[in-house]
Amino acid sequence: MGFENEKNNSILSKLATNEEHGENSPYFDGWKAYDNDPFHPLKNPNGVIQMGLAENQLCFDLIEEWIKRNPNASICTTEGIKSFRAIANFQDYHGLTEFRRAIAKFMEKTRGGRVTFDPERVVMAGGATGANETIIFCLADAGDAFLVPSPYYPAFNRDLRWRTGVQLIPIPCDSSNNFQITTKAVKEVYENAQKSNIKVKGLILTNPSNPLGTTLDRDTLKNLLTFTNQHNIHLVCDEIYAATVFSTPQFVSIAEIVNDEMRHCNKDLVHIVYSLSKDMGLPGFRIGIVYSFNDTVVSCARKMSSFGLVSTQTQYLLAEMLSDEKFVSNFLTESSKRLAKRHKHFTNGLEQVGIKCLRSNAGLFCWMDLRPLLKESNFDAEMSLWRVIINDVKLNVSKGSSFDCQEPGFFRVFFANMDDETVDIALRRIRRFVSVKRTGDETTAMERKQQWKKNNLRLSFSKRMYDESVNLSPLSSPIPHSPLVRART
Amino acid sequence: MGFENEKNNSILSKLATNEEHGENSPYFDGWKAYDNDPFHPLKNPNGVIQMGLAENQLCFDLIEEWIKRNPNASICTTEGIKSFRAIANFQDYHGLTEFRRAIAKFMEKTRGGRVTFDPERVVMAGGATGANETIIFCLADAGDAFLVPSPYYPAFNRDLRWRTGVQLIPIPCDSSNNFQITTKAVKEVYENAQKSNIKVKGLILTNPSNPLGTTLDRDTLKNLLTFTNQHNIHLVCDEIYAATVFSTPQFVSIAEIVNDEMRHCNKDLVHIVYSLSKDMGLPGFRIGIVYSFNDTVVSCARKMSSFGLVSTQTQYLLAEMLSDEKFVSNFLTESSKRLAKRHKHFTNGLEQVGIKCLRSNAGLFCWMDLRPLLKESNFDAEMSLWRVIINDVKLNVSKGSSFDCQEPGFFRVFFANMDDETVDIALRRIRRFVSVKRTGDETTAMERKQQWKKNNLRLSFSKRMYDESVNLSPLSSPIPHSPLVRART
Repeated sequence: MGFENEKNNSILSKLATNEEHGENSPYFDGWKAYDNDPFHPLKNPNGVIQMGLAENQLCFDLIEEWIKRNPNASICTTEGIKSFRAIANFQDYHGLTEFRRAIAKFMEKTRGGRVTFDPERVVMAGGATGANETIIFCLADAGDAFLVPSPYYPAFNRDLRWRTGVQLIPIPCDSSNNFQITTKAVKEVYENAQKSNIKVKGLILTNPSNPLGTTLDRDTLKNLLTFTNQHNIHLVCDEIYAATVFSTPQFVSIAEIVNDEMRHCNKDLVHIVYSLSKDMGLPGFRIGIVYSFNDTVVSCARKMSSFGLVSTQTQYLLAEMLSDEKFVSNFLTESSKRLAKRHKHFTNGLEQVGIKCLRSNAGLFCWMDLRPLLKESNFDAEMSLWRVIINDVKLNVSKGSSFDCQEPGFFRVFFANMDDETVDIALRRIRRFVSVKRTGDETTAMERKQQWKKNNLRLSFSKRMYDESVNLSPLSSPIPHSPLVRART
Repeated sequence: MGFENEKNNSILSKLATNEEHGENSPYFDGWKAYDNDPFHPLKNPNGVIQMGLAENQLCFDLIEEWIKRNPNASICTTEGIKSFRAIANFQDYHGLTEFRRAIAKFMEKTRGGRVTFDPERVVMAGGATGANETIIFCLADAGDAFLVPSPYYPAFNRDLRWRTGVQLIPIPCDSSNNFQITTKAVKEVYENAQKSNIKVKGLILTNPSNPLGTTLDRDTLKNLLTFTNQHNIHLVCDEIYAATVFSTPQFVSIAEIVNDEMRHCNKDLVHIVYSLSKDMGLPGFRIGIVYSFNDTVVSCARKMSSFGLVSTQTQYLLAEMLSDEKFVSNFLTESSKRLAKRHKHFTNGLEQVGIKCLRSNAGLFCWMDLRPLLKESNFDAEMSLWRVIINDVKLNVSKGSSFDCQEPGFFRVFFANMDDETVDIALRRIRRFVSVKRTGDETTAMERKQQWKKNNLRLSFSKRMYDESVNLSPLSSPIPHSPLVRART
């Protein structure tokens, strides 16, 4: 079975036969390494620990407790079955009114109650992936361009660009000012694009930033909104990590700026992408949201939501859960507390061996500065170091160049997709690696690998933890996990 | 708030500012009439009865019973909560292995067990809407064309064409041969397109047909497969009504032809679209499936499924339910039996007043021949008759021209989206209308309307039915139902 590639090229679409999707980029090699040799506390204690995966696993217990207390929230319980047929049969692309109301309220709470969201502007999409594509389909035609501060989320190339045909133009940010976005940098890239006759349709911000874990301050947001308004281009704010802010400064949503200090701006150019995958840790439920201040965009995005509606079974559950204000408040407080604690534990552990991270206040990850460990200051050296980390240290972290970072030596590392014990194993591996690296830079790679293996501790685990790990393995799927699906990172 | 249209035209995409989506076509006026005045047995007994809605409401009791007996199938019950975190966290775009296996098995059963489906080729999409768009994105570039026998499902214009930019070219079928597709007709349209330098990439079949309710016989399928193979173009079979076949001849899937008599054909050109919205009556759950015999298409479609994955909560439930072979067999037998009974009751009722339907063996609807009621044989007369049916008779049916039918006077009418009592009210209204029409063709429209209202019976309903109707109303959503979302009809 199967045509040769040339034959497929003539009968299939360009999308099906080119490599624009990005799954074959080196960014995903780490996932492949993990899939081939996944860490398991008992079964494979020397396997690769997944630190490239954007999961928030710290608060499942709170959600599970709520579900146990609220059997009526499910249409598949004795208490809830009476709603089954109405819900299973409901396919209105507006979504359940209660769901949109609950989402709007949740968005308010995650922004500290300082701004209100109109449920009539809440549009569903298939996860943040679908929401990102939807907003681009609404704003731009193939060939148009969007500016994106780099380092940026690698799968933007799929989400924003692949099927829409738009271009992404990076705005390089670097360590000289802690990777902050300046209007000057935006202006420069915008003007260069203009000179090249590229039609720039907007600026994409991720706030809080993935991969930096930082938030944009009020002045930066105001300046960027002013800039985009002046040039009559869109400002799209990806705020999917809004509730992961765990310390000061507090998160400022673009919605606050638009509704408050800059309420006379042209709101028709402002749009928010949201999701429950990170803030609630529910990526499997595929809740993506487009929230636009532009009526035409709301209407068009809603029509497009036909291609990625959220299952009504899931809408119903979440409508009930997120309407419970007491639960939501407690969840948000507790989640933030646990993230802060984990972040502190992890970054302290790194600091003890001299590894610094960019100072951050949000996200499920750190932006780790491994420049001192590079043999030379270039991307080949970054790649070599990354290979050692994957293959010898057995940690899947993501290298900066995957995020289009212009400076070699930075790595993004997740700390919230695992339990306490696994974090400690990861820290132990890093410490060991750094000390081996420092004491034996002359030894060959093979020697280092052997030394590493010899020193790698096998720990014993409690039954509880073993069970949790088993529970967390995605059923008994024989298929290796696709890297890109896990790549909202 | 809101720009003028011209301003939006310059800042938004063409998709957002043109009318290609099709929601404003007259096809959906009937939904609007229904939304403004929906029938309710007690609250609004003279309201519009919805007979344009592609719902299968005949077997919810079987599903509900199964759910009550299997609390472990839900991750939101005491019995199932232990799987919650693994499932809520699972976002692999392959989907749960168990889900794909169960879908493949279900597809086999709905095709009489005469063919097997490979779970590795089962790709998820956001409902049939998403599956249709996905397959086109894989097969064709903007500007390419697909041939579609007409009458065809109106929302194909959205699903297949809107965001992909492909063209649809109808192959007109008519009553002279009971709307059967002939290779001759396909060939003619194909050759004309060739002459106009249009790149035809494939042929789209809906089998069973919506709106006809008929199935394609083995020879027709073989001939069309031969034709498409000879011209090196794709054959896409939309089989979303496969399990609604309620009488002979039995359904023949293209998969049977490909795996059996024509196993030496070029399978790389054959693809199936499937869904559980009609066959199981679960449109809210958004289960769309692309099943392709082409490896590259499977791989590309799977990457695209990131934009419309099925909620894992729903995948898990259905994996369990559809793995229960005894339940599935009973469900399919019973569903077919109930559809046959309803179809017979409805068409007998129509025949009593001289209304004929195209002889059909599948679907949730009839293709009603109202040509004898047209004042003249043209589409203006069809439109006039349709307006009377909507506004005076108060039934939302769909007129043939919405399906690009070339002969005026045909109407599609659903019979499976309501209970027995409502069907009888609809039949009574039709009978009354036909007799009034026959006895008083000289009376004015106003007089007819008054006479109609005078004769329209107000019936009393049992408590049970009232409750069911309340249950079936989509919560208490104040938003009128969007017509298009309900338009997989």
